[in-house]
Amino acid sequence: MDTITIGVVTTSDRASAGIYEDVSGVAIMETLGEYLQNECEYLYRCIPDEQEMIEATLKELAKARCDLIVTTGGTGPALRDVTTEATLNVCQKILPGFGEQMRAASLRHVPTAILSRQTAGICESSLIINLPGKPQSIRECLDAVFPAVPYCIDLIGGRYMVAHEDVIEIFRPKGK
Amino acid sequence: MDTITIGVVTTSDRASAGIYEDVSGVAIMETLGEYLQNECEYLYRCIPDEQEMIEATLKELAKARCDLIVTTGGTGPALRDVTTEATLNVCQKILPGFGEQMRAASLRHVPTAILSRQTAGICESSLIINLPGKPQSIRECLDAVFPAVPYCIDLIGGRYMVAHEDVIEIFRPKGK
Amino acid sequence: MDTITIGVVTTSDRASAGIYEDVSGVAIMETLGEYLQNECEYLYRCIPDEQEMIEATLKELAKARCDLIVTTGGTGPALRDVTTEATLNVCQKILPGFGEQMRAASLRHVPTAILSRQTAGICESSLIINLPGKPQSIRECLDAVFPAVPYCIDLIGGRYMVAHEDVIEIFRPKGK
Repeated sequence: MDTITIGVVTTSDRASAGIYEDVSGVAIMETLGEYLQNECEYLYRCIPDEQEMIEATLKELAKARCDLIVTTGGTGPALRDVTTEATLNVCQKILPGFGEQMRAASLRHVPTAILSRQTAGICESSLIINLPGKPQSIRECLDAVFPAVPYCIDLIGGRYMVAHEDVIEIFRPKGK
Repeated sequence: MDTITIGVVTTSDRASAGIYEDVSGVAIMETLGEYLQNECEYLYRCIPDEQEMIEATLKELAKARCDLIVTTGGTGPALRDVTTEATLNVCQKILPGFGEQMRAASLRHVPTAILSRQTAGICESSLIINLPGKPQSIRECLDAVFPAVPYCIDLIGGRYMVAHEDVIEIFRPKGK
Repeated sequence: MDTITIGVVTTSDRASAGIYEDVSGVAIMETLGEYLQNECEYLYRCIPDEQEMIEATLKELAKARCDLIVTTGGTGPALRDVTTEATLNVCQKILPGFGEQMRAASLRHVPTAILSRQTAGICESSLIINLPGKPQSIRECLDAVFPAVPYCIDLIGGRYMVAHEDVIEIFRPKGK
């Protein structure tokens, strides 16, 4: 079974300054650990909400051949929320269905879900997915899109993910 | 209680030429008046479907420190429909969840809702929202997105909106 | 009754090389033939997944005054999937509601529907719609958006479509 390389990027001025602990980055690694049977190598970065630094970090993780890069934070409408812009800038392809689906999932809980600008895209041969900053929303967004993630990574030439099907039901079209 | 500054921009070749009355701009002010307990100062503009003029008007209203700028008209597929382009051009951030949610709301009434290119975004410290041109669709679109508007305006540093909760249930995350 | 000019563009390295038959292009023409009472003149192109060639083909078909141009294939996340980029590049206006609606329709069948980057837009006076590559998904996507297509084509100055209302219920707003 392949070892999966996963980038986890927390963008937060306060967490990167040590003002508080990065609970969201940890929540992502826990959730992916529950989903996947594969061993996972995590490349973890906790950086401030600076667009250039986020872009450089995403590119570095793509060069390191991450199959999946997950960000948390920086997708709202505030001035310092620039993770979405960084993602749009480094990706060769944008996958708008991820943002639509994550917003639809969050909308079942809060009407302010429409304020999220989360997206996803392909950078080199990595799939980048923006997750919200709030730990409690991370699982609901990942649950909403992860069923399509392993097949997406197949299509862009990444490593083969095997899921714990009792935790998350992934999907690959038959004959593929 | 803060006085809210609201820009209302009707883009219509015919209304701006006086060929017919601008019912839509009036409908927007009536609806917002029913929603909000705050006093509202309206900066109202009725202009032709000229992209440069629309962009200049949106920028002028953002400079005038509008908390919210609402447009009506110019979001369809026809040649003279350029309000969406103007909005995309002047905004520093785009909020695709607004368009998704307004189209979903309109789709419950008419299948041609998918032709609407309505969007929303942040210009300086103003939230701009595109509404449809038809008066009867304005209320259904505003009802669909307004619950998230006051918190969005909080996040971009605008004035504090207080709603008539029996008319529209707005939402701010707890602890914020 | 107007004769409708319809461009059908299959983008597929293998189909264009004759490695397999283009079933998808045929499925599109069959479906539109069932929908429409009008006579249809089809301009059919089967080309490789080369972005420049796709853009040139879309422009040529728009110049030939197609009312509708339908593509199949090239909307996924893989390296050779570039039909979406070509469409975004040649269109003066993008209609995001089409992609949202087609993904929503496909999501009822497969969670990997969020990987589709299908969109639609206006190029000159032609409506371009991206459909998926798989023949069995073409009908479900066309069923989801076609009700809005004739009115969209009215708005951009195209020919007047008349549908078989027992096959597909199209919609034009009253008084239009």
